[in-house]
Order: sequence, then C-alpha cells, then structure tokens
Amino acid sequence: MTATSGPPTTAAADHPARLDRVREVLQDQGIGALIVTPSADLRYLTGYDALPLERLTALVVPAQGDPVVIVPALERPAALASPIGAAGLMVAAWTETEDPFSLVAGVLGDVSVVAVADQMWAEKLLRLQAALPRVRTVAGGRVLRELRMRKTDAEVAALRRAGAAIDAVHAEVPTWLRVGRTEREVGKDIADAILAAGHASVEFVIVGSGLNGASPHHELSDRVIAEGDPVVVDIGGTMPDGYCSDSTRTYVMGEPPAEYAETYEVLLAAQRAACHSVRPGVLAEDVDSAARDVLAAAGFGDLFIHRTGHGIGLECHEEPYIVAGSAVALEPGMTFSIEPGFYVEGRWGARIEDIVACTGTGVERLNLRPRELVTVQG
Amino acid sequence: MTATSGPPTTAAADHPARLDRVREVLQDQGIGALIVTPSADLRYLTGYDALPLERLTALVVPAQGDPVVIVPALERPAALASPIGAAGLMVAAWTETEDPFSLVAGVLGDVSVVAVADQMWAEKLLRLQAALPRVRTVAGGRVLRELRMRKTDAEVAALRRAGAAIDAVHAEVPTWLRVGRTEREVGKDIADAILAAGHASVEFVIVGSGLNGASPHHELSDRVIAEGDPVVVDIGGTMPDGYCSDSTRTYVMGEPPAEYAETYEVLLAAQRAACHSVRPGVLAEDVDSAARDVLAAAGFGDLFIHRTGHGIGLECHEEPYIVAGSAVALEPGMTFSIEPGFYVEGRWGARIEDIVACTGTGVERLNLRPRELVTVQG
Repeated sequence: MTATSGPPTTAAADHPARLDRVREVLQDQGIGALIVTPSADLRYLTGYDALPLERLTALVVPAQGDPVVIVPALERPAALASPIGAAGLMVAAWTETEDPFSLVAGVLGDVSVVAVADQMWAEKLLRLQAALPRVRTVAGGRVLRELRMRKTDAEVAALRRAGAAIDAVHAEVPTWLRVGRTEREVGKDIADAILAAGHASVEFVIVGSGLNGASPHHELSDRVIAEGDPVVVDIGGTMPDGYCSDSTRTYVMGEPPAEYAETYEVLLAAQRAACHSVRPGVLAEDVDSAARDVLAAAGFGDLFIHRTGHGIGLECHEEPYIVAGSAVALEPGMTFSIEPGFYVEGRWGARIEDIVACTGTGVERLNLRPRELVTVQG
Repeated sequence: MTATSGPPTTAAADHPARLDRVREVLQDQGIGALIVTPSADLRYLTGYDALPLERLTALVVPAQGDPVVIVPALERPAALASPIGAAGLMVAAWTETEDPFSLVAGVLGDVSVVAVADQMWAEKLLRLQAALPRVRTVAGGRVLRELRMRKTDAEVAALRRAGAAIDAVHAEVPTWLRVGRTEREVGKDIADAILAAGHASVEFVIVGSGLNGASPHHELSDRVIAEGDPVVVDIGGTMPDGYCSDSTRTYVMGEPPAEYAETYEVLLAAQRAACHSVRPGVLAEDVDSAARDVLAAAGFGDLFIHRTGHGIGLECHEEPYIVAGSAVALEPGMTFSIEPGFYVEGRWGARIEDIVACTGTGVERLNLRPRELVTVQG
C-alpha cells in the first residue's frame, strides 16, 4: 500500500505464458472465463500492480479468445505504462458515467460458468452477478492455485532474497529488545529495519512479550518488556518485486523459566520434524501432523492451536495451506511456512517459523537464522 | 498495512450507538442482517482494525438480536484486546478444521435478505451464498453509507488534523523538487515526510512530471524532472486514528508555458466555483457541474476526464462521490474532495484538490495551502 515501491514488475515473469496456462486450466475445468480485479492475481498474470479501488479494473481471460483489460478511462495511461502495455494486451476504457459491467458482459459473450478472483470485492461480484443472471460464478482460486502454487526457479530465488532480507532484520532484533522498552518502541525499530533491509513495504510486525506471546496474531502494544519475558517476534514485508518475507524467532530476556525452556526444546524438535518431512509427494496434512505429533507426544498437543503453515509468494498467505485435512501433494517449487508454536493463555507463547521450498528431492529452508531460543541480556 | 500504527481506535467513536443505528437501517430497508469482514466498515462499527486474510473474521449484525463477532480461534485474544472486548460484544471462535460459514448461518437464523460489506472477498461471499442457498445477498454499502457518509464533529476534526498533516508535507515539496531529480527520488522524500507529519501509513504518492501529469493515476517513474515541467503532486496517508488525508497541488519548474498558465487559471476558477457551490441540499452532481461548467465554458471541457471528487473518512475513497448522475443531497458532516484537473496526453496535466466539509450553512476547506501554480526555481 505504498507508491514508493519499485517498478511494478515480478521476478522474471513470462506473463503471456501464464495467460495461456490460465486458458488451459479454464478449458480443463469447464469454465468459460476468469475475471481478475486488482490483487496479487492480477500482478501475477500481467505485472500490473494496481490498487483495488471503487472503479472497476478487470482482466477478463476467456477460455477461448484473447484477454481484455477493462480500465477506468483515467487509469488507461497508467495501465498502458505497466507491463500490460508492453505485452500488447487489449485495453478497453470506460468513462465515469458508463457501466463497466455491461462492458464485461460484452467481452464474455455466451458462457455459463465464470471464475472470479478470490479477492474481488463483494460489491463488484454482486454487480457482476446482476449483469449476468444466467451465469454461475465460482471462486477463481481453483484456477489460479494451479499456477501460483508452483513457483518457477526465478520465483524461488525471489523468495530466497526476501528470506535473506528478513533474516538480516532478525539478526539485529537482540540490539533493540531491552527490558523497560515497550513492544511498540521495539516494533518501530523493526519496521524501519524491514525497509532498510530492502523491502518496499512492511506487512506486519508482531512483538508478543510475556503473556502477549500467547496471542498468535497479537501485533504491538504498550506493554513494557520485563526481565524473564519470552518475546515472540514474527515479522514480514514485501520486496520491490512483490515477493513476501515472513519469519518468526522467539527471544527471552535473560534466563527463561525452566518449564518454558523445556517446552521450547520440544517445539524446536517439532519444527525440525515438519521441515524434514517435506519432499515431493508428501501431503500438506502430513507435514502438519509431523509437527503436531511431536508436540502431542510430549503432552503439549493442546497448546498448538493453529495450522502448521501457509503458502507464500506474491501474497504472504496463499496456497498451499499446511493444515489437517489438506490432501495437496507437495511438488517441487511449492513454498510455504513451517511455524509450529505453543500458547499458554495468561502466561506466554513461542513460535519458530521458516519459509521452505519443496525441491526435487527434499526441502530448502529460505530462513537460516538459528532457531534456538535467543537469550537477550537486556 | 503496517502494524506500527497507533492503537486501533477511531476518533471518539460510539460503537454501540453505531451498531444500534445499523439495526434501524436494516429494519427500514427490510434486510435481515449485515455481515462485515475486516475493512474500514469493521473498524467504523467496532474499532477492531483486523487485516483481511484468508480465515473468516466477521461481524454479524442481525436486524433483530445481538451482534456476534466470529473469529478464528487463534485471533480470539487479539479480538478481545481490541475495543470489541471492552464493548462486551459476543465473540464466537472457530478452530482450524471447523467451517465458519455454518457458524454464520447459525447466527443468522431465518432471514431472506442479507447485506454483506462491500469489500468482503468474493471467495467468502461465494461460500456464504453456498451456505445460504435461499438467502438473497445484497451490497452492504446501501446500509453503511447511511452512517459513514455523515461525519460527526469528532470525525470532521480528525479529517481536519489529517488535512493539516498533508498540508505540512505540501509546504515542503518545493524543497525536494529539483530539475535533474527523478520522480521516484522526490516521491521517496515525500513518503518519508508523510510519516514524519504524523501519518501512520503512506497511502499513495503521485509525482506526475511533464507528460506524466496527463495520467491522473500515474504514481512514480524514473523520469528526470526538466526545466519548464509542470509537476502534479497528489499525496495522502492514513492517520493513527484511521482517518485519511488526500491533497493535490501543481508545481512548475521555472516559468510555465503561457498556454499552460492560461488553462491553469481556468482550473483554479473551476475548483473555486465547485467549493463555493457546496452547502446543505445541493446535489453531488451539481458540485460536479459547477467545476465542469467553468472548464467547458473556456473550451477545456474535454480535458477534464474524471469526476470532481470522492468522499473521504476511514477510507480515502468512499461515499459520497461527486459525479454526474449522483443525486445525493449534501448534508452537514459530509466530507469529500474537490479536485478538477486538465490532462493533455503527451504534453502535461494539472489538478487542484482540497478536502472539504459541508457545514450547516456552506463549506469548510480542510486543506489550506495556496492553490495557485507554485513556481519552483529548480
């Protein structure tokens, strides 16, 4: 959400080939067209990094026929200046008093099922449904996951660079964590460092000290960090090429309580077991179990209250999700987090998170900082 | 999109009263319930500033009965730590392997029409429609605009503070604009200043120099600013309390071409005429005409290719839109931009934008920087 990021390109992307692949998947799935509003999906398919706003911008990819980009007239020059222009995609502009949904309907022609990007706004989907009363709309994730879930070597390289950037921030975290400072003060230093490390924007900064560590999606508070506190630091940003970083390490201010240190050792083993389980053909739910079983065997199963991970790429959370019930079979080029944790309400929490890539034979970790509890003399 | 902003509160908001008002509007409009996912709508109604993510978080407001907030189990502590907890709203948590949409269906009971927040993700709306096959879904904007379009004095004061913050940035722009610098370099200085002026995040930075000024939604490029260039600078951010700023001024590097200066004088008159037309009872489309007619009378009507303005509050673009065809009658407390421009492809552009508030008797401008073309000796 900042205009100061680099040019709106993606890592060595072959957009025309991606659009061709979309058409193949649409034909395989019996879907007449895909409609994509501004989102990571649009950036992935065209390189156009537009903001989602009230005026309709939409890429329409028919299963048969050429893609068309529908844009508000005032954004036509911006669209043409993006990779859309260089790719020679057809661009149709609508003026302030025209109805862009009838333009979409005209491009679609006679289709019975249309997929829409998962993050299209509801008010746009409802207007589309009203403009196409005989067309069934389905979520476009089923089309786009077939492409985005499998990263090219260039995309894995982009995620490796993002991983190195966030690792560099974690390397400095011990210098900012001090007894007597607030989470918000530490978070400000971390946010500055995320940008200084080469990210174009900060996506999230979680500093969960003491009992705040028990809230997995805690962000920042005015709580003052105290001696003996464990501190969960989960941070991420977006690089200029659009690829995301996301890594968690847990720190402790001085000596940890013995009970905490003991549970942390089990967590470390759980995270290692899940990483080691990754290879082509293994199911996402089995990676989840690999972490969960280690914690459960030690009697800590109830403390691990969330899934083991999520895919990552142009979005921080995307397919494949590493969760019970997911029968997605891992393939080379799938990239995702492995982040088991334990959470004790009113006391503390811990989490260890690496981004990993499934390779041809096993796994590559894209975050390389030590995973042991980091003792900070604060 | 940054976790380093201040606490997730809104300006002196009375959330329970807002929820009561939603129920009244639902009853008036014959709608059974409103469902709100993370967005400015959720922040407006509850103060909970959650990120929109793949897991369902939803406020369900039945026309009859108590609101319920449905959250992923791992976000329950974060929700309770937000104003939702202090307000004592009912919070229902779902675990990773449960279906949250059946939870929503259970809360809704027997209703025939449900409104959903305009920015709910399509994949969530589609799952909701599948879970409620006999329920008609409509866009929630028709409910929420009745509340959000009319600002309280405290909200207008928040927008006044945001206006002063962005005015302070424009006051410094001439020190960064230099012949030989790129738009991107100038944009970086502006983005830093937006944060330094008290905003929690940068929303957009447009530096449209020379022919790039002809693209209204141009952002930043590597174009080098040259002697004689007009430069359109349209910038905005979000304050820690969630309220947005947005203001455009046009600068020129040295002496402007005579033809440009002449057109700019007409633009200035058009912007003034539109501002002066604002008072209770005037229609939004008449404010649009007030600007458009001045440009058209001078023969520049075709160069003004977009609407005159948009509402502003917790979102940078919201109701009321100041556009041909909008019969919204202005009321005290409505806040919106007035931003006519002219655009000549391949040559240059100009825009003058103030945020204004409709008062009991007329208008208050919330941006106060001089509106004349600013000559920069670069």
